[in-house]
Amino acid sequence: MAWFARSKQEPVVDEEVVEEPRLPEPPALNEAGLRSVADHTAYLLSLVDPLRPFGMTLLEGWNQVVCEDIDSMISVPAFSTAKVDGYAVRSSDLTEDDGRLVETLDVVDAVDDRLPIGAALPVQPGDVLPAGANAVLPGTFATVEEGRATLIEKVEAGEYVRAAGEHLALGTRLLSQGDILTERAIGLLAGAGIDKAMVRPRPRVVVISSGDNLVEPGVELAPGESADANSYMIAAAARAVGATVFRVAVHTNDRETIKQVITDQLIRADLVISATGGSREDYEAMVAVMKEIGLVDEANVAMSPGSTQTFGLVGDEQVPMLMLPGNPVSAYVTFHVFAKPLLRQLMGADTGPRPGRAIATGTLRSNEGQLHLLRGQTVSDQKVTHVTQVTSPYALGQLAESNVLIVMDEHVELVRPGEAVKVWFLDGE
Amino acid sequence: MAWFARSKQEPVVDEEVVEEPRLPEPPALNEAGLRSVADHTAYLLSLVDPLRPFGMTLLEGWNQVVCEDIDSMISVPAFSTAKVDGYAVRSSDLTEDDGRLVETLDVVDAVDDRLPIGAALPVQPGDVLPAGANAVLPGTFATVEEGRATLIEKVEAGEYVRAAGEHLALGTRLLSQGDILTERAIGLLAGAGIDKAMVRPRPRVVVISSGDNLVEPGVELAPGESADANSYMIAAAARAVGATVFRVAVHTNDRETIKQVITDQLIRADLVISATGGSREDYEAMVAVMKEIGLVDEANVAMSPGSTQTFGLVGDEQVPMLMLPGNPVSAYVTFHVFAKPLLRQLMGADTGPRPGRAIATGTLRSNEGQLHLLRGQTVSDQKVTHVTQVTSPYALGQLAESNVLIVMDEHVELVRPGEAVKVWFLDGE
Repeated sequence: MAWFARSKQEPVVDEEVVEEPRLPEPPALNEAGLRSVADHTAYLLSLVDPLRPFGMTLLEGWNQVVCEDIDSMISVPAFSTAKVDGYAVRSSDLTEDDGRLVETLDVVDAVDDRLPIGAALPVQPGDVLPAGANAVLPGTFATVEEGRATLIEKVEAGEYVRAAGEHLALGTRLLSQGDILTERAIGLLAGAGIDKAMVRPRPRVVVISSGDNLVEPGVELAPGESADANSYMIAAAARAVGATVFRVAVHTNDRETIKQVITDQLIRADLVISATGGSREDYEAMVAVMKEIGLVDEANVAMSPGSTQTFGLVGDEQVPMLMLPGNPVSAYVTFHVFAKPLLRQLMGADTGPRPGRAIATGTLRSNEGQLHLLRGQTVSDQKVTHVTQVTSPYALGQLAESNVLIVMDEHVELVRPGEAVKVWFLDGE
Repeated sequence: MAWFARSKQEPVVDEEVVEEPRLPEPPALNEAGLRSVADHTAYLLSLVDPLRPFGMTLLEGWNQVVCEDIDSMISVPAFSTAKVDGYAVRSSDLTEDDGRLVETLDVVDAVDDRLPIGAALPVQPGDVLPAGANAVLPGTFATVEEGRATLIEKVEAGEYVRAAGEHLALGTRLLSQGDILTERAIGLLAGAGIDKAMVRPRPRVVVISSGDNLVEPGVELAPGESADANSYMIAAAARAVGATVFRVAVHTNDRETIKQVITDQLIRADLVISATGGSREDYEAMVAVMKEIGLVDEANVAMSPGSTQTFGLVGDEQVPMLMLPGNPVSAYVTFHVFAKPLLRQLMGADTGPRPGRAIATGTLRSNEGQLHLLRGQTVSDQKVTHVTQVTSPYALGQLAESNVLIVMDEHVELVRPGEAVKVWFLDGE
């Protein structure tokens, strides 16, 4: 049927179509059928908005991202003051004719509002100049008799004056949107008369620990059980990024229970991070719950370890939720590759990792087409940082021995001893 | 008089000598009459002890210094389990004679306490081995008839078993005294069944702001007044080092008032830091109070800025108290040179600064014999970090533009463009 042909049919009443809510189209897969780490990161970041800024006192807002341009509220110094003993004057009153000073000035005791034209007010160093005065005539530049000052030498506007705003003019731009409220930025604002700033708050992270076979550390283990380590490690890691962290353990795979706990926690979560035990059942229970309460993206990412990635927007408020793999090394690497940028996105901060470089002490191997994150330990002297791969078989021990992730990019297959390699430092930045 | 000679004199009753309490002998001055920065630092550190450790939960203790050697409380895995379908056995029951297997085993349904000698218990992968069993005989290694297993092939101790402690043996040293409880150390402890650790608590710092001419930022300034910036900047800086900070403003030079406020605050202070305005009166009032309530060391230190250094042990508990100079740059540099090591000493952490290196973009000058700390801004690319001296005349603006202190050691007088220079990064480490 041609589009504009007149139809003789009865008009068709469209049924109301309720669109199934879903996540935006995910990025295309590469030739190996995997999503690249860069694509996956960009996709997750596109699903999360920075938190709304709050007005906070300077110390509350410390180390957070400023969300406004901030200008000085005062001049520093706030007032123009005399630098020497003498007389506050208007420089325009001090005229010359043929090189001779012709004016005398009335020496006044006090000034009501503005310095009258032709008047001079005695001042000492540090005294605030009255309105209208723009220079100080040193005492030695005039002779005074019967309340009249006869000039010996004149001064120009601004001479012998410490001018208001000399250090900082009212309205000077101090910080711009996106700046970090460092300790020194706090000093700058306070000195400029500013006691509050609009900053993005610290994200609130709920770390949910689930899995039938996990128990709290310190509890005696029954056969098949292990002590929950991942959720503690990840809670501390989220705190290190600057988040306020709530760790909630629900050591079960019962889907109703998990669902109830997550739903209860959403009220205080800007990001939910799931940490589970290592079993398939743990993983499946959590994914099933995520799908029940939200929109879920499951991806095989070109990354090792941590290729299985699951992310969702859950609950009525579509709170972002990142599920970590069960293996401690995979979970930890996933945190640093994906959770950290998400947290920094929530904080309104730069989301890119800031890699360092180190010299490999041994041969490092990777597979082309895959971001490979090896665990490493660095030793630095004044001149150079060396890095050695850590390969201890016990996952948590391997992490504890490491202080960097060695970043083998997609195009890197081999790094030889003595060659430089990219590293992410794990403690502080 | 010989020591053991019998005395005929009346015994001499010594008068009780009350020794005036005083600080230990300070270090000697150098040829210029100044105390070196290294000597002054060592002297201050000798007057301050690390805080007493507390038992804290893992997340409370995050990023603090561990004060005990910690060994694993469990084996990981906790139990020996079967890797294959078969029979849990004692390898010593499987004997050979002339290369022929001679034993048969009783197949039992269950084990009460220990596996009886000569018994075999059917197991599946993951099943915990009973006490006494040390190997798994795969099902294909025996024929079973009427409750007796006849061996086809034997196994050695440990074969087909995932052994308890294979990843981590009970009692393995995990952390040693002095280690930092990083996020990965937390994972290691939790996985080893440990939920608490003895760590040194965060130091509590009271920042006292005094001075007649200071007002809170946001309050309208009268002539001669300025907005208090130093105490805010220093409070944030102490927090960045890891302290819990209380900022207390007492904007007066009235000695009784200052004394009362400091005395009241000592109960919650592991370190008091005084920040004042820039006037001589501010400085003198605070020093007078320190001398009244404590033992005070005043030194001229071979350092620029910040050569005037005042430190005391105040109150009945001899709480350390560091007085910062009034100039914002001097105060900030003093914080980084002296307060930061003191805080790290309280935390039981390594007190030495961890300098980086950068390439100077311009000529940097210093005076021999003096530690000179210039303010600098770095720009980094993948390969190299360049540093440029910041010389803006407004002190707080100069600090806000900087992200490093450029460290010109005592023997350095000149650094030329393109030469490397030591820097302390100011944000995070």
